Amino acid sequence: MSERIYPYQQLFNFTKAVFQQIGCTESDAAMATKVLLSADLRGVDSHGVARLSGYVRLWEANRANAKPNVRIIHETPSTAVVDGDAGLGLVVAPFAMQVAIDKAKQVGTGWVSVQNSNHFGIAGYHAMMALEHDMIGIAMTNASALVAPTFSVERLLGTNPICVAIPAGEEPAFVADLATTTAANGKLEILQRKSKETPTGWVQDKAGNPSTNPHELKSGGALLPLGGDREHGSHKGYALGAVVDIFSAVLSGANYGPWVPPFPAYVPMPTDMPGKGIGHFFGAMRVDAFRPAADFKFHMDKWIGRFRSATPVAGEEQVLIPGDPEREMEANRLKAGIPLLNSVSEDLILLGEKFGIRL
Amino acid sequence: MSERIYPYQQLFNFTKAVFQQIGCTESDAAMATKVLLSADLRGVDSHGVARLSGYVRLWEANRANAKPNVRIIHETPSTAVVDGDAGLGLVVAPFAMQVAIDKAKQVGTGWVSVQNSNHFGIAGYHAMMALEHDMIGIAMTNASALVAPTFSVERLLGTNPICVAIPAGEEPAFVADLATTTAANGKLEILQRKSKETPTGWVQDKAGNPSTNPHELKSGGALLPLGGDREHGSHKGYALGAVVDIFSAVLSGANYGPWVPPFPAYVPMPTDMPGKGIGHFFGAMRVDAFRPAADFKFHMDKWIGRFRSATPVAGEEQVLIPGDPEREMEANRLKAGIPLLNSVSEDLILLGEKFGIRL
Repeated sequence: MSERIYPYQQLFNFTKAVFQQIGCTESDAAMATKVLLSADLRGVDSHGVARLSGYVRLWEANRANAKPNVRIIHETPSTAVVDGDAGLGLVVAPFAMQVAIDKAKQVGTGWVSVQNSNHFGIAGYHAMMALEHDMIGIAMTNASALVAPTFSVERLLGTNPICVAIPAGEEPAFVADLATTTAANGKLEILQRKSKETPTGWVQDKAGNPSTNPHELKSGGALLPLGGDREHGSHKGYALGAVVDIFSAVLSGANYGPWVPPFPAYVPMPTDMPGKGIGHFFGAMRVDAFRPAADFKFHMDKWIGRFRSATPVAGEEQVLIPGDPEREMEANRLKAGIPLLNSVSEDLILLGEKFGIRL
Repeated sequence: MSERIYPYQQLFNFTKAVFQQIGCTESDAAMATKVLLSADLRGVDSHGVARLSGYVRLWEANRANAKPNVRIIHETPSTAVVDGDAGLGLVVAPFAMQVAIDKAKQVGTGWVSVQNSNHFGIAGYHAMMALEHDMIGIAMTNASALVAPTFSVERLLGTNPICVAIPAGEEPAFVADLATTTAANGKLEILQRKSKETPTGWVQDKAGNPSTNPHELKSGGALLPLGGDREHGSHKGYALGAVVDIFSAVLSGANYGPWVPPFPAYVPMPTDMPGKGIGHFFGAMRVDAFRPAADFKFHMDKWIGRFRSATPVAGEEQVLIPGDPEREMEANRLKAGIPLLNSVSEDLILLGEKFGIRL
């Protein structure tokens, strides 16, 4: 598993050029690139530039629209539904989050459900847009079905992540960004490459038996909801993933459950789809819609300080605040560059050749 | 563990009379009783009438105010902060949830954070208030610290439940009501009575080692966040419990983390408390603030039908929809009565003698 390190700006220029080549406007290409690479910076390698050729294949298969007319199709003072016009989620999601922020400015909070979109990168980017406005940001999305609800043999939910970003004062922001499964698909891929087994509670086989085979998804198995099994609370992970699905798609008119379109363009689309594209859900809450921002930040700092200074279990350095590892990773990779597996580099080089762009 | 069965109305009359004896108005006593007994009806026995004498002891210790002036102290069109004036959470919470519903009627959604309250019974009661208005209801609360964050020896979070109630059409509502721990305290008590060990991932000992001793909390151990340990995603359960704490208390001005007042009146109050009482957070979203209610309900029914009819794992009857078990329990107990352990009956009889009320 050898890898090569690329400066952020090099990957940025390359990725933006690819998005422009498929027809994105310059500003859309820049936005999509910024969102996509935020995953690489924050260490969520599975959701970053490694997926660029996947987005291009969606466009080639006419499943993604490079020049979408993203627009509000319904609204109230604190809510909206956005139609992504089959655009890249990397562009649709920041539009919709901005609508949520604008509504929060007016009436305290804003809540936006999105239909007819595609994969939006990491939830964290969108939720964190709220922070500079002294708002709490919330982002979630559904995704194609890889997860079996408790007691189910069938895969009916995506890994359906939730991000909640909360501003602080002197301390860095609290940013919880989590898939509602025990482990995300990216972690399985790492174990596959290392030829290692998974811990218990991550996957089941196609009959619904517990498994530790990281290749299980390819033979009809499923990821498991956070908790793993009933005895360890998987019905809670299932319920959380279900809430994400319903807020993202049943509220907006997108597809839900087993009908969510797959990311890989070679996978056939589901039949009898009940909605349009995939769905997202965003929220923004002004902290001063509850109490003065300075008071909120003072107590948020106190909360963070108390948790970070808790006595750690022997062998662990300290209790982490959600967002700590990703923030450190981002600072480090902005300086030292982003490592890509050789297989990813080669894929990008091939993609570049198609469009006459050098990595 | 012998038990006796009581008709709902008998427990209702008794409980309401007790609340009136400590000084609640007739309507507050009726509300508190309805909320408290909704736990017994729904099978959450640990949060129901078994806690009545605990509420009375809070009042005796001057930690709960039977005649509170519950009021809005800050608001915007879509938000409010409610001061519970140290009242029973059983009364404060329905007031605050009604504020959220009223705001949703006006601007699409309503979000209310509450300070200076006490334990509010089950989250489900409050979230489900939204259903009859064709709204999605959300309820959460912090609670005294019994849970150790990932890598922490110290207990810094409560079991911090989240409930999301979503209306449907022909199908019964989706009601996910979950503690953000692997298992709630009530489940430990059941194992204690049976002298059984816990599964892995439920508790740790006072040094932070994994344990299967259900008595661990009494000797300085802790409940574990949903996920159990880092490898199984406990950092996600910790993050969710943290979000509940921050929304309930840092937004409102209540106490948070290790400073949340304990429910048992014999436990000393924390020192240097940074806020007032315990905190809750409520949300209401009109479904027609996103799409016509009939469309939403049609697709919600389709969602529920698809999940319920999924192929079950061998040995399991069917895939459940969140809320199914509690709804069946409620229908059954309304008809057949509510079973109380003899120890609970005896506690209630003693409590009644103090106030001259017969169970």
